[in-house]
Amino acid sequence: MTKPDWIAIDWGTTHLRVWGMTASGTIVDQAKSDRGMGSLSRDEFEGALHDLVGDWGCTGPMIACGMVGSRQGWVEAPYATAPCPALPDGLTRAPSATMDVRVIPGIKQMQPADVMRGEETQIAGFLSLNPKWDGVICLPGTHTKWVHISADEVVSFQTFMTGEMFALLSGQSVLQHSIGNGWDDAAFATAVSEAISKPEALAARLFNLRANELVNGQCRDAARARLSGLLIGAELAAARPYWLGQSVAVVGAGPLAKIYTTALTAQGVPVTQTDGDRATLAGLTAAYRRLKATS
Amino acid sequence: MTKPDWIAIDWGTTHLRVWGMTASGTIVDQAKSDRGMGSLSRDEFEGALHDLVGDWGCTGPMIACGMVGSRQGWVEAPYATAPCPALPDGLTRAPSATMDVRVIPGIKQMQPADVMRGEETQIAGFLSLNPKWDGVICLPGTHTKWVHISADEVVSFQTFMTGEMFALLSGQSVLQHSIGNGWDDAAFATAVSEAISKPEALAARLFNLRANELVNGQCRDAARARLSGLLIGAELAAARPYWLGQSVAVVGAGPLAKIYTTALTAQGVPVTQTDGDRATLAGLTAAYRRLKATS
Repeated sequence: MTKPDWIAIDWGTTHLRVWGMTASGTIVDQAKSDRGMGSLSRDEFEGALHDLVGDWGCTGPMIACGMVGSRQGWVEAPYATAPCPALPDGLTRAPSATMDVRVIPGIKQMQPADVMRGEETQIAGFLSLNPKWDGVICLPGTHTKWVHISADEVVSFQTFMTGEMFALLSGQSVLQHSIGNGWDDAAFATAVSEAISKPEALAARLFNLRANELVNGQCRDAARARLSGLLIGAELAAARPYWLGQSVAVVGAGPLAKIYTTALTAQGVPVTQTDGDRATLAGLTAAYRRLKATS
Repeated sequence: MTKPDWIAIDWGTTHLRVWGMTASGTIVDQAKSDRGMGSLSRDEFEGALHDLVGDWGCTGPMIACGMVGSRQGWVEAPYATAPCPALPDGLTRAPSATMDVRVIPGIKQMQPADVMRGEETQIAGFLSLNPKWDGVICLPGTHTKWVHISADEVVSFQTFMTGEMFALLSGQSVLQHSIGNGWDDAAFATAVSEAISKPEALAARLFNLRANELVNGQCRDAARARLSGLLIGAELAAARPYWLGQSVAVVGAGPLAKIYTTALTAQGVPVTQTDGDRATLAGLTAAYRRLKATS
């Protein structure tokens, strides 16, 4: 087996993923575990990483992004302040006697206050795949980010808790009894449209999902799609300054990226979609190349 | 000890409260437990009630309101359909060989679909305490209800999940790390005002509570008040057709009723406040009197 020249690490709250890479950017190995930042105390990070890559024989650097660099992570990689390049200068070295791990800093914005950690690497990756690109990037997730890019810099960004709200409301609120596991495209589209055109009514529409099942026997799959559509529609209403009259790059994968693309397209927004993992790996690769070029 | 002539029962999802009453409406005994509907299977209701009132020696009827009458309760008391009197005709008898328990029906609304169970009794109680009253009643709670009353009837109503949203966001979302236990009146007032004037921005403001602590060290007590203000402000924006140009009766108690009163007063709405327990007991008493008058 080819020994990797360096290792790419995506280390979020709930997951740890690693790729063994050649200097030219070929993947020669990969692994993952559920030992995310949220489940580790500070002295457990080194072991969790060693368990995955210890036998890969890599003597080069390891480049990490994500919550591993938060205050509760392995080592705090202080935020850069927007406006700034997606990949700011300065990686933070994690405390390890056996491994050379460098953590990419997150980005903060002072007014309105906002933060990102991990997405900056996906943005850098997207920009390395699409040089000279200007416009708006949407990164759907538990905390969806809208990011305005100009001249290779993160100009401003805004975070929406839409994914977390959906999980809480569908899984833990009274609505859980009325929400199925299926989907209904038409119910989603209608709900997005309603929420965008009258976002102030959101608070009045949520309990209606429960009552509609009790009173009218509303289908639970449609209720799931409708809840998602109401929340994403409310997000689009609030994020309008980002996407109105713009072309939007959705960076992500799976059903979530698809429904954001669907919702934006229905608003007449031109959307391109880029796989989130591909963007992450391209961003970590860009950080590796910069490290090699400057060391 | 005076034997009660009848027993008043408030049986919700999380609590069971009972009062021993004389025919003339004096409380001679009371008790409560945490054996709410949510923790009981159908054959456990009789025992849970007997544990509280079994030794009171009451041979008269027991009048119950709340989730005890839901499909998952002791016996389903089918919804009356609005518009209808707050206390519709017809109590549903619970299956018991030893106790005469009658359950007050909830009220449903077909379009937009909505339901209430328990609040109808508080409304009936409020109306028995305030005869000939027309206007809007707000019942703050986990699921706050806004109710339009005219000519002694529930004309229409709307439920807001504001209380449940606050509990989920402050206790279980990423915001929990930034939310303290204290309070800040000014932060609450500002947030209500912001949310009412620009409700479409709600989705963008929530994560800001987290980021503001990380970036600016925002006070956690202020964050708690601000989250509450944003959610109640969004509710008030959506409930505007109920309160605009109306006088509002807030039926409830404690800090929650107080902050609704504060928020409405700041909008120039004349508010009267009635204790929720007093309204519940008055409603159960009205149901008892009607039962005696017709049997």
